[in-house]
Amino acid sequence: MPKGRLEAFSDGVIAILITIMVLELHIPAGTSWHALGHELPVLLTYLLSFVYLGIYWNNHHHLLAAVSRVSGATLWANLHLLFWLSLVPFSTAWMSEHRFPSIPTAVYGIVLLAASIAYLILQTALLRAEGEQSRLRAALGSDVKGKISTLLYCLGIGLAFADRWLGLAVYVTVALIWLVPDRRVERQLTTAPAESSQ
Amino acid sequence: MPKGRLEAFSDGVIAILITIMVLELHIPAGTSWHALGHELPVLLTYLLSFVYLGIYWNNHHHLLAAVSRVSGATLWANLHLLFWLSLVPFSTAWMSEHRFPSIPTAVYGIVLLAASIAYLILQTALLRAEGEQSRLRAALGSDVKGKISTLLYCLGIGLAFADRWLGLAVYVTVALIWLVPDRRVERQLTTAPAESSQ
Amino acid sequence: MPKGRLEAFSDGVIAILITIMVLELHIPAGTSWHALGHELPVLLTYLLSFVYLGIYWNNHHHLLAAVSRVSGATLWANLHLLFWLSLVPFSTAWMSEHRFPSIPTAVYGIVLLAASIAYLILQTALLRAEGEQSRLRAALGSDVKGKISTLLYCLGIGLAFADRWLGLAVYVTVALIWLVPDRRVERQLTTAPAESSQ
Amino acid sequence: MPKGRLEAFSDGVIAILITIMVLELHIPAGTSWHALGHELPVLLTYLLSFVYLGIYWNNHHHLLAAVSRVSGATLWANLHLLFWLSLVPFSTAWMSEHRFPSIPTAVYGIVLLAASIAYLILQTALLRAEGEQSRLRAALGSDVKGKISTLLYCLGIGLAFADRWLGLAVYVTVALIWLVPDRRVERQLTTAPAESSQ
Repeated sequence: MPKGRLEAFSDGVIAILITIMVLELHIPAGTSWHALGHELPVLLTYLLSFVYLGIYWNNHHHLLAAVSRVSGATLWANLHLLFWLSLVPFSTAWMSEHRFPSIPTAVYGIVLLAASIAYLILQTALLRAEGEQSRLRAALGSDVKGKISTLLYCLGIGLAFADRWLGLAVYVTVALIWLVPDRRVERQLTTAPAESSQ
Repeated sequence: MPKGRLEAFSDGVIAILITIMVLELHIPAGTSWHALGHELPVLLTYLLSFVYLGIYWNNHHHLLAAVSRVSGATLWANLHLLFWLSLVPFSTAWMSEHRFPSIPTAVYGIVLLAASIAYLILQTALLRAEGEQSRLRAALGSDVKGKISTLLYCLGIGLAFADRWLGLAVYVTVALIWLVPDRRVERQLTTAPAESSQ
Repeated sequence: MPKGRLEAFSDGVIAILITIMVLELHIPAGTSWHALGHELPVLLTYLLSFVYLGIYWNNHHHLLAAVSRVSGATLWANLHLLFWLSLVPFSTAWMSEHRFPSIPTAVYGIVLLAASIAYLILQTALLRAEGEQSRLRAALGSDVKGKISTLLYCLGIGLAFADRWLGLAVYVTVALIWLVPDRRVERQLTTAPAESSQ
Repeated sequence: MPKGRLEAFSDGVIAILITIMVLELHIPAGTSWHALGHELPVLLTYLLSFVYLGIYWNNHHHLLAAVSRVSGATLWANLHLLFWLSLVPFSTAWMSEHRFPSIPTAVYGIVLLAASIAYLILQTALLRAEGEQSRLRAALGSDVKGKISTLLYCLGIGLAFADRWLGLAVYVTVALIWLVPDRRVERQLTTAPAESSQ
């Protein structure tokens, strides 16, 4: 199966999710700076979720760029990832409208954790199809970032019950770690030119 | 007519439908696990509809992969399928918000049944254009799964009036049957390489 | 300018418009057939607008298939068409929620009329770029359908003030006239093979 | 990295933003011309934001047409632009629903200003990757329009506090300046044929 439609469908879903959150933004009740400031925590949470979805799109882009074909199993691994990402607007709204209570803040982290596990499953499915000698294998290396993120999400979820701001701080930290796009694949693609051009 | 825009438009519509349902998810009234649990039936129904739309996208992907060109009639057969799929969020919300009464549960099944018939019409329109000797014909075989699904939808709609949980169980069963993507086409594409590469 | 992104963007906007109307569908207040029946006029209007947007997508597909490149002016002619199409969900909702009063029914016709004029402008802009000897010119012929539609929309808008059902009947008639996709371009493309394959 | 998915994702997000604003349009309370007229300021603001997003899509289209590949940094510069554009529906709604008070009108200008700066950053990132001898560099020239726009946005934001209508008039002026698509790139592409065809 060529990978074109998988990319187009994922682009579509992530583009919708990243913009659908704007619909959750309530128009400030008044027309003063103070009324806008009251919505600031919601706006900042929107920014955080925007960055997270941007990171996933970015990494998805790099991941798929390194493979040439996709199997039926990959299609489902990809839909599984999109399912968890589709819960991001819901958990963002629940957390931010109630101004970050413990449980919604933890649930936000659980959705992020589930999405990161779904991404690992997709990556593994692609790796299995591509083989150990593939460009993807070489590009990914030991995937330290992925492993650290999983640990940090668990830490964030736990901390949300102790101090919600600490939990949020951990989520922001993971986002900052990933803001640098996955240059490994990019570097690999540059040094080892695409098969078609060999 | 090349098939590119038909695929792109269908990808767009299904991507929107699969994510638009998130907008139907009400934020839990409270911030406790109990408040989240209260929304669980709605979340699970969202998951079911997500899987159904995922199945349609997957099968649509496989179906179109086996054809090379589309006619004007196919465009309308495709829009007809998209129309029924577009009613999935509506019937999902009606059924789940009222906690699965008989009639909305039956209507959910009717929408699924209509979508499956629309899919058959699209498949038939493509088959007629491709011919009896085509790869698509060989790939589809006797289409046992399609026929069984139609029967099961009818069963589910009937059972919804006797016991709504039985009706829902049938819908879940059909989804599980299809979760395995339509490997027939994939196998066919692998054994019989695409015409362009012959 | 290649036409790829113009097609992709138009596909995106029309796909969103055609599905966004589902969000306007109110879940029936009760769970009886009667409650669903109460929403039937809204559902039927949704069907009509779905068909109209499907017609535009279909004709847009055929129109663009016959051209090879687009100019800056064409991009704006296309955005102008998309602007009027984007008002379809708004006018559909206004007309159907109030159960088809004269003025909203006339406004629905005015939006359809404006969209059809915008389509003519786009068609003219493409024709001017392609030239009188082009495949597009040959494919479009005298465009009787387009001219009749414009007249019928005016008739429908007028009739909406006399009898709203007559006005609606005219809108349905225009949709039926166009349901047959624009075979002229298709036929032309079949008889006169694409330049690239000559 | 090929630029295909960057274009597809941006097309998706801008297509959604441009249509999502329709959801903000409230159906008029009554069914008279007067009730529709009451919504006219909202409709006209929708038109203004539609034109702005159309301009960005148009210029984005021209900008990307002149480059051949994108880097990881460009992906983020693009997401940064999309973030500010995604706030356009929110600020449009806040400004128009309250009928253009000073602060929301200024905030609308601030969002437009931030988007224009984000566009400049994206342009600069692409220019750096393409080099001083590139077609893009030649096509952009001294970018007088971009510099004037930035000044006018600042003027508009200031004027919004003195007289909101003057502020709005400045925003409309900037839109009119840009309504003419960026022909520089188009001309350049025509005179200097694409590398692939050389």
